[in-house]
Amino acid sequence: MTVLLFASHADRDDWWRETLLAEMPDLDFRTWPETGDVAEIDYALVWKPETGLLAGLPNLRAIFSLGAGVDHIFADAQLPEGVPICRVVNPNMALRMREWVVMHVLMHHRRHREYDRLQKAHEWRELPQPHAGERRVGVMGLGELGGDAAKHLGLLGFDVAGWSRTPKAIDGVTGFHGADGLKDFLARTEILVCLLPLTPATEGIVDADLLSGLPRGATFINAGRGGHVVEEDLLAALDSGQIAEATLDVFRTEPLPPESRFWDHPRVTVTPHIAAFSDPRALVDQVIGNIRRDRAGEPLLNTVDPKRGY
Amino acid sequence: MTVLLFASHADRDDWWRETLLAEMPDLDFRTWPETGDVAEIDYALVWKPETGLLAGLPNLRAIFSLGAGVDHIFADAQLPEGVPICRVVNPNMALRMREWVVMHVLMHHRRHREYDRLQKAHEWRELPQPHAGERRVGVMGLGELGGDAAKHLGLLGFDVAGWSRTPKAIDGVTGFHGADGLKDFLARTEILVCLLPLTPATEGIVDADLLSGLPRGATFINAGRGGHVVEEDLLAALDSGQIAEATLDVFRTEPLPPESRFWDHPRVTVTPHIAAFSDPRALVDQVIGNIRRDRAGEPLLNTVDPKRGY
Repeated sequence: MTVLLFASHADRDDWWRETLLAEMPDLDFRTWPETGDVAEIDYALVWKPETGLLAGLPNLRAIFSLGAGVDHIFADAQLPEGVPICRVVNPNMALRMREWVVMHVLMHHRRHREYDRLQKAHEWRELPQPHAGERRVGVMGLGELGGDAAKHLGLLGFDVAGWSRTPKAIDGVTGFHGADGLKDFLARTEILVCLLPLTPATEGIVDADLLSGLPRGATFINAGRGGHVVEEDLLAALDSGQIAEATLDVFRTEPLPPESRFWDHPRVTVTPHIAAFSDPRALVDQVIGNIRRDRAGEPLLNTVDPKRGY
Repeated sequence: MTVLLFASHADRDDWWRETLLAEMPDLDFRTWPETGDVAEIDYALVWKPETGLLAGLPNLRAIFSLGAGVDHIFADAQLPEGVPICRVVNPNMALRMREWVVMHVLMHHRRHREYDRLQKAHEWRELPQPHAGERRVGVMGLGELGGDAAKHLGLLGFDVAGWSRTPKAIDGVTGFHGADGLKDFLARTEILVCLLPLTPATEGIVDADLLSGLPRGATFINAGRGGHVVEEDLLAALDSGQIAEATLDVFRTEPLPPESRFWDHPRVTVTPHIAAFSDPRALVDQVIGNIRRDRAGEPLLNTVDPKRGY
């Protein structure tokens, strides 16, 4: 008997129960906090698990994340050591992120916010602008999602650079890396896209200092995590004009509180953490696949390196 | 001495004079209606020339269009026969059109109009949707601009089909052609992009009949010409819900009159004929290049077939 504990405030346990059982009828699916005998639990499928929840499962064989990031798991101060953590990797997620990133880069590039205002005023007027080949876009984070977005921005015709912790080669993308490469990367970037993983090293990386390294009037697009941004610093940079426009899909507090200044800021676009909304059907295949591999004594796929945090 | 007559209500003659003379100092640049001796005029550089203007130039060697389309020249009922007409073809124009088309397809695909409303209401809510691979986009017209846009929509991940007068093969694009192929093309198209040339055969092609061939709730994007669309039919289809949303860059009357219903329609995006705004510097290179070729006895580039009208 294989026992899986489902724990999420954001996902529907009934859908997951039905879909996983259709694939693996002998699975004993339990929804937290109805754990039954905790010693029987083999796998945990989680989103933002409560502190100590995972530490209370003595025979846990693997932790599966319900989303792309795993920072919500590492946030647990009592996270048990030595239990493999598997993240979700799926091509649809990269495709969906690519759609969102390309669209918002284009909307800034093509001055859509201003054209929208002209339409409301019934005003027929052309706004001059460079073409994509003259527009310098920079993508921070060149993993599954950032690498794909950078590549496709390049295919579309933008002048794209990427920045990552270690050197990464992507066709058509100028590479920068490490602390030493950050300054030059920022100085040449007119539209900055954050697609970093959230780790202790990247927490709060988008602060007043980083934003001041961009050319004046740059655009900031965040599709990483809210924790990458010092939100007061971003608001100050928007107010001063250092940052002309921003598009934000992720925030320190989600859902974004109704009183947040971001909602009504005249140069900020807010989307509700939907940039790369994952298709649950694709997640199911990976969870089932990893349980089958583990039962057969094969190594798990898409495990996270706990030292790097992604 | 080479004499060029410039005639446009939409373009700045001082900029053109200065820029062309910098490249070709011996050029005699004249601005209509100050023609001087019409028998001396070798070339006309025009946008929407008045009826009979070109017929009044007895020794004209070539007509250069100031824009991508040449329908504004063929609209002249007294257009002289046998004078070559050259259109503008430049990679920047295809690039700029690609930016605009990809952006507006993505905005419909990703339900941006609804997310924009949610932001205004400070409402954090996810709207379900397919990914690009599950979205069927159709491009009418597979010339320089339409072919490029179709190809790049495919590279981005959309399920793309194209329709053209004669068969055209484009990587990653399902081809339909001719009157016989139109019905099947429309039936499978959720987002329709018009990038046809405007000819007698395509005038008014987007009418109630064509729109009713799309699946209910389809999107219409026009980056061709206003003359492709029977505007009352499009408004009726928007009102009935047959067409859910439209994005229009071109109109029967431009500038779009302030009283047009399109400005305020809650599901219509209006842009002021800027989709592929051409870079005048690139046009200069082509005009100068063609004058030099003609002087050297070489054939002109990018001439239009008067029988096809493009």
